[in-house]
Formats: sequence, structure tokens, C-alpha cells
Amino acid sequence: MKHLRSIDELGPDGLRQLLDLSDHMAEINRRPVPKVPALRGKTVVSLFFEDSTRTRLSFETAAKRLSADTMTFSVSTSSVNKGESLRDTIETVAAMGVDAFVVRHKSSGVPWQVSRWTEASVINAGDGWHEHPTQALLDCYTIRTALNRVDGFDGLHVAIVGDIKHSRVARSDVWAFAALGARVTLVAPQTLLPPSLEGWPVEVVHHIDDVVEKVDVLYMLRMQRERMNEALVPSLREYTANFGLTPDRAERLQEHTLVMHPGPMNRGVEMAVDPSELPGSVIAQQVTNGVAVRMAVLFHLLGSGAGLAGEA
Amino acid sequence: MKHLRSIDELGPDGLRQLLDLSDHMAEINRRPVPKVPALRGKTVVSLFFEDSTRTRLSFETAAKRLSADTMTFSVSTSSVNKGESLRDTIETVAAMGVDAFVVRHKSSGVPWQVSRWTEASVINAGDGWHEHPTQALLDCYTIRTALNRVDGFDGLHVAIVGDIKHSRVARSDVWAFAALGARVTLVAPQTLLPPSLEGWPVEVVHHIDDVVEKVDVLYMLRMQRERMNEALVPSLREYTANFGLTPDRAERLQEHTLVMHPGPMNRGVEMAVDPSELPGSVIAQQVTNGVAVRMAVLFHLLGSGAGLAGEA
Amino acid sequence: MKHLRSIDELGPDGLRQLLDLSDHMAEINRRPVPKVPALRGKTVVSLFFEDSTRTRLSFETAAKRLSADTMTFSVSTSSVNKGESLRDTIETVAAMGVDAFVVRHKSSGVPWQVSRWTEASVINAGDGWHEHPTQALLDCYTIRTALNRVDGFDGLHVAIVGDIKHSRVARSDVWAFAALGARVTLVAPQTLLPPSLEGWPVEVVHHIDDVVEKVDVLYMLRMQRERMNEALVPSLREYTANFGLTPDRAERLQEHTLVMHPGPMNRGVEMAVDPSELPGSVIAQQVTNGVAVRMAVLFHLLGSGAGLAGEA
Repeated sequence: MKHLRSIDELGPDGLRQLLDLSDHMAEINRRPVPKVPALRGKTVVSLFFEDSTRTRLSFETAAKRLSADTMTFSVSTSSVNKGESLRDTIETVAAMGVDAFVVRHKSSGVPWQVSRWTEASVINAGDGWHEHPTQALLDCYTIRTALNRVDGFDGLHVAIVGDIKHSRVARSDVWAFAALGARVTLVAPQTLLPPSLEGWPVEVVHHIDDVVEKVDVLYMLRMQRERMNEALVPSLREYTANFGLTPDRAERLQEHTLVMHPGPMNRGVEMAVDPSELPGSVIAQQVTNGVAVRMAVLFHLLGSGAGLAGEA
Repeated sequence: MKHLRSIDELGPDGLRQLLDLSDHMAEINRRPVPKVPALRGKTVVSLFFEDSTRTRLSFETAAKRLSADTMTFSVSTSSVNKGESLRDTIETVAAMGVDAFVVRHKSSGVPWQVSRWTEASVINAGDGWHEHPTQALLDCYTIRTALNRVDGFDGLHVAIVGDIKHSRVARSDVWAFAALGARVTLVAPQTLLPPSLEGWPVEVVHHIDDVVEKVDVLYMLRMQRERMNEALVPSLREYTANFGLTPDRAERLQEHTLVMHPGPMNRGVEMAVDPSELPGSVIAQQVTNGVAVRMAVLFHLLGSGAGLAGEA
Repeated sequence: MKHLRSIDELGPDGLRQLLDLSDHMAEINRRPVPKVPALRGKTVVSLFFEDSTRTRLSFETAAKRLSADTMTFSVSTSSVNKGESLRDTIETVAAMGVDAFVVRHKSSGVPWQVSRWTEASVINAGDGWHEHPTQALLDCYTIRTALNRVDGFDGLHVAIVGDIKHSRVARSDVWAFAALGARVTLVAPQTLLPPSLEGWPVEVVHHIDDVVEKVDVLYMLRMQRERMNEALVPSLREYTANFGLTPDRAERLQEHTLVMHPGPMNRGVEMAVDPSELPGSVIAQQVTNGVAVRMAVLFHLLGSGAGLAGEA
């Protein structure tokens, strides 16, 4: 495997392999000195055309714990603004000796374009509404560890609630959860679903109360205020009434049910309850696991067999 | 000691202990390879809500010399701007595995808030007009080494001149100098003093000429142009006349008197003389010592006994 | 040698020495782990007053491969904006323990000023229209390796085409190519030549067709749209007609002729042909060699004899 651009190109076996490797990385992260020399001399460049401090910091932490060098390509100050084409920029940075590009872009498909222009590995850190595969990996890894589901998600019921239409997280999660055997239910108003769900391995309901007592995992998506201006939801208040996790609904969750969120949360909108008071919330674990999962991805793409032994 | 948020919580013993440790760090900094593996695998995050390149670079240099990994959390491009609460941001970044946050914020008290939200250590790098404890530490360390005052500041007379009211440096310095035994005189117009000085271990005078020939240390504060617009001083010219260090006053200093400034200087205003022509100026040493002192703070909060042996 | 501010101060011997050292660095860069401990504990600060992501990344990659610590001084967020003088800023950052400043500034001569204010080494990464010595070094190194010219450029004919007047690249290249023995022809309209070329070791022609079939190296400069607004060229179309590398001209190049460009390219203007379809294009190699050459410069200024042995 050279790139990680989508969950699809990873396949169920690749997915399981990365989750197994993440276990190893999580163990490294629990050591007093959480650092190994695995990727010494490798250069990982963050190429973020869209701001995302949390995702960038997570990848950079992951790279540093494997002893890779990291560099941030700041698009706002780059030659992209002098009219240089994206291709020339990529080829130039790559020619300096880059081993992996971590790409975030507001347009779908940019990671595929980038991978045609360079010999370096390309990791999709979110492309438009399309995919965000490391988020799906960390979500799978979080469910797997929290519910002790090392052998897969057969019989597990996951609901993804909210703005599916504009969510790369939802797209990647649906395919990853399904590949591991879970049953996936989307919970959204018609206006926040993609025009067609043909081929998606999902069921759809239109009210959170239809799933709240039944599911093993309740995955809440961020609700952006812009959707109201775009007339996709009548008001945030009504959105919360139909799709928000309120204290009342939180009480109706099963004891073992996990509550997840990719962050940043909109408190009072989709999260109308303080997650620190939800026993089933694994939101902080998602963030912690994100580092381990990204270490696994970087090592899988750039590392060699012996690289995990020893201490940095 | 887990955090460094104020000089007060450090106490006189903690203060002396950090100054002793700074000696060790200064020795490391004089080596051909000024780097030790003491904090290998630790992650220090700069969380600067207010720009301060010099303070940030000083902390990052300190962290790197102890082999810690450093990351800058750029607030302007972060989810704080997407409406995420400061608390969610801190909790998210902390969940990635951060060992210390270095926090600069325009509001007093933010470092205390941050420390309630995370298990990581919190170092106050300046909160509003309130405190700037590492500045006070480096000022103490500079006086201690320049005047060979390892046993404390008993009998030493320090004057702090200028805008006391808006200065976190002054607040931290007053308590630190006094804790070590110095006599502290504030020199400022009434408009640039806090409404009450009750409980402060200081004397007050209203003209620099009252102290210039007497003190062992003349500590000049930055005079900001804004104060004139706020009608707190009639004009910068008059400020210089009453509170500036002019060539004439410089000549009246005692031979051993130190001149200090936290930077950045306003040349021609409070510093109406070129400090490079003042034999007693230790302004460059303050900056150099800042790295050693911050190494001491980071090691004290995050290090373990054996960590200073060997070479990185 | 303490600084690298101009090709001139390097001299022909220094130039050759750095090119020889670049060979060694290029070999390091081809290793599986392209990293040596040569500059461990050294601190290199990028001081870019003018944006240039590619040059900054190239220097930072070079520094990291030699195990130096790197820091970026972001001018836009620094005290330079609070009215602090450049000198105070430099002296302050230097006092933290900086070994080299890499300086980019829109005004000619700033690297010389900076070197008067600090004991650290100063590397000119481009000052106004004046000099860009590491670009000239990487250009020489690229020609030397691509045409196997280890003993110098005697008999080699290089044409530099375009906006000579505003180009620090052209100024540095002319002196470097000539110092190694090349014959240099400038190709530009009168409006894009300096007012006087007295003392320059060059010939001048006013049409690219005068050189295209004759030269061993065709060095294309970036044509900036601003020049049209300044009425220095009638139109970009006419510029391309007289000075652009078109497919037709590309076919008339000799088989061994190299095509070079410092980037970023203006496709369709000076580069009216896709460089990836030019067999003689060494534009990507220029970028790759840039890292090796900058490693050579950093090691030459900051390293010690034994420092290249071993692995980082």
C-alpha cells in the first residue's frame, strides 16, 4: 500500500491490519518515553489548504513519535498565491525529498491528483465532502477497544446522526463500519442526506428517537450554523429537537452504548448535553486514538519491518 | 510542583530551587552541543492567544535543548474561531498526549482555567496584566549572576520604573524580588499605578531622579504609545522627562548598578539612551538567561531525576 | 568563512569548495536514512520578511538532515510590528543562542546589516534585487552534475533570459557562472536590463532566437505580471513571442542543452512549453540539489571536521 486516500482502497483486510498495528502504537504511546526511531530521516509534509489545527497536530504528533521530520506547508503564504499551479507546487516540494504528503483540501479528489504528481505517499486528511479515512480508522479503533471487538463489528448497530450530506466523516465511517460487519443507520432530515444513497450499506430514519434506545454506538456529527442560512434546517432549535443529544435522550441510551463525535462539537446544538457527564462518551478517546492510528498509517506507508524495535 | 502559574504559588523555596537549577541549565547552554535528552518523548505545546515571538521562541529553544518535541497551537487558524469553546480546544489538544501547555492570553487567570481542564502541566507565559512568572525568574537569575548574589537579595535596592498598572512583568517581579529579600521601589505617575497597592511589599516615588543615584538595579518597563491616547500620560516627551533613562541620568547611576528591560524597548521613550553604551546594561543577558530559566522550569515540571546526565 | 551573503565574498575557490561539499551532501540524501548528526545542538533561525515557502522549506530540510534545530521567526506576528527596531529584534533573538540566521528581505543589503548586529552566521536567502547566493550555488551544482563539469565551466555558454533588472537570481548567477569560467549572455529587452552593465562579465542580446540554437544552458527567469502594469513590457503575449520558451524553440535547442528555471514558473508566459516534455529540463533537479547545496553551506559555516561521520 502506497497511499491512504479512501477507506475503499484500503479494503477490509487493510483496515484490520491497520487496526492491529494501532494496538502496537497505542502501547508505544503509553510508555514513559513514547517515541521510537521507526521513521528517522523520513520527511512528512502537512499540506493543509483548509484549516484544521486538530487534525494537523494529530498527524504531526504521530510523525514525531516515530522520529520523522515534519514540515507544514502554509498555503496562505506560498507561491500558490503567486499564480503557481498546484501541480508545480507539489512537484517542487516533492523534489526536496518528501516521503509523505498529508493533504487537506476543500475539493473532493485532490489527494488523488496529488498522488499522480509525486512519488511520495499521499494521506487524505479530508477532501471536501468526500472522505476522511484516518477519522474512520480512529473511530473503528475506538469502538473496537471500547467494546472489546477485536474480531470485527458483526451484530453491532451504529447510528450516524446529523448532516450526512456535507460530511466526509460520515462517508468514510459508513464504509469502514460496514466493512467490519456493523449495521449502519443514518439519522438525518431529507435535506441533509445525499441526493442518492444507492449502493450505500445503510438504513435511513428521520428522527433520533427512532434509534436512541437501540444502538450500540451513537455517532453525532457536527451541525454547522451555515446549514440554517442555506435553509437546509428551519432552525437550530428544531434541529436539536429532532436530532440533538439531549439529557433526556442520553438517559434512554443503553448502558453500554458509546457516544462519539469527530469534533469540534457545537454544544447546545447536536450536543445538548455535557459529554463529560455521559458515561458512554468516548470522545476524548477518539482524539487519543487518533494519534495511534495515524502512527500506524505513517508506519505502514513509510516504515520497514525492523523499525519498531528500540527506543528513539 | 505541577504548574507554574504565578510567583506566589512557587514560594521563596521553589524560587531558589529553580534559580539553582538554572545554573545547571546555563552550563549546558555553554557546551559545544547544548542539548541533553532530559525530556525526550515529552510534548510541549505553545498556546499563544496573544502574539509574542520572543517569548515563544525562548520557550521553544528551551524545550528543544531538553529534547522535547514542540508544537505551536496557532489560535488564529484553530477551531476556536469555529465557535469551539476554549475548554473543548484544550481538552482535545491535551487528549493527543501533551505534557505541558505554555499559555499566553490577554485575560488574567486563563492559565488557572486551563489547568483545571487538563492533566498536563501549565506554564503561564503572561496572562493579561496579571503575572509573567518566567520573566520574573529570568530577572532574578540575571541579578543573581550579574551581582553574584547566590544567597539572596538582602540589602539590595531595586527600582521598577514605568507603567506598573498594565504590567504583568512588574507584578511578578515585585513578588519575586521581595521574596528574595530585595527592597523594591516603584517609580511611576499616579495614573500608571494600580488603584490600590495594599499588601504590596513596595515603596512608591513619582520621579526617576528620586532613585537613579541610589538603586542597585534600575528596571525599566516598556512605555506603550497607547497610554498617551488613553490620556494616562500627557505626552511621551513629558514621560521621558520624568521617567525615561536619559544619557544624563545614565551617568549618575552607580558603577555597579544594573539596567534591565523586559523588551521590546521603546528607544527614545523609556530608553532614551543606547543600552549598548551602558556598562551596567544586562538586557542581552536577560534574554540569554531566559532560555536557561525556562529549561529549568520545564525540567522541574516534566523531568525525572536521572534526566540531565548524558548528551542528546 | 563566517557568512554567505554574496557570491562575490565566496570567491571562485569558496565556490568550488562548496560544490565539492555538495557532492558529499547529495550522497547523504540518497541514503535510506538521509540524516547525519553533524549540526546537533545548533539552532538555525529562518528570518523571512518576504514570503518564500519553497526557499524556507529547502533550508529547513537541509538543517534537519544535519540534525540542527530550526525555528521560524514570523515577522508578521513579531515585535517588529510593535515598533521594535530590526536591530533590537535581531539582537534579542540572537541572545537566545542562535548559530545561523537565514535572511530573506525585500531590501538589498539587509543580510550585511544583520551580520553587523550578531555573532551568528548570516545566510542571504534573497535580498531585494541584489543577491541570492544559494540559488546560484544550486544552479552551478546542477550544471556541474548534469553536464559532468567537475573541473569548471570553461567553454560553456549560458544564456539568462528575461527580467534581469529585477532579478537577484540573475545577479548571483552571472557572477557564479563567470567565476567558474562560463561565457554568459543576457537575453532581455532594454527595459528589463539594469541601467548599467559596466563591469558585468556578460554579453547582451535582445531576442531569445539569437541564442536558442547556440547555448549549452538556457536559464529562464520568471516573468512577473507586474512588469506589464509598470509598462516595462507591452504585453505578456509579446514577451512570450520575443523571450518565451515555446515548443518551436524547444525543438531547436541542442540535444545536450539544459533548460533551467528558479521557480515558480509562469506557465504560458516565459515557459510556454511543458517542462516535463523537455528532455533537457533539469528544473526538478535544481530543487533537489538545493537541499544538498544548503546542507553544504550550513555545514561549512557551522560544522566541525568530524561532524559528517556516523548516522543521526
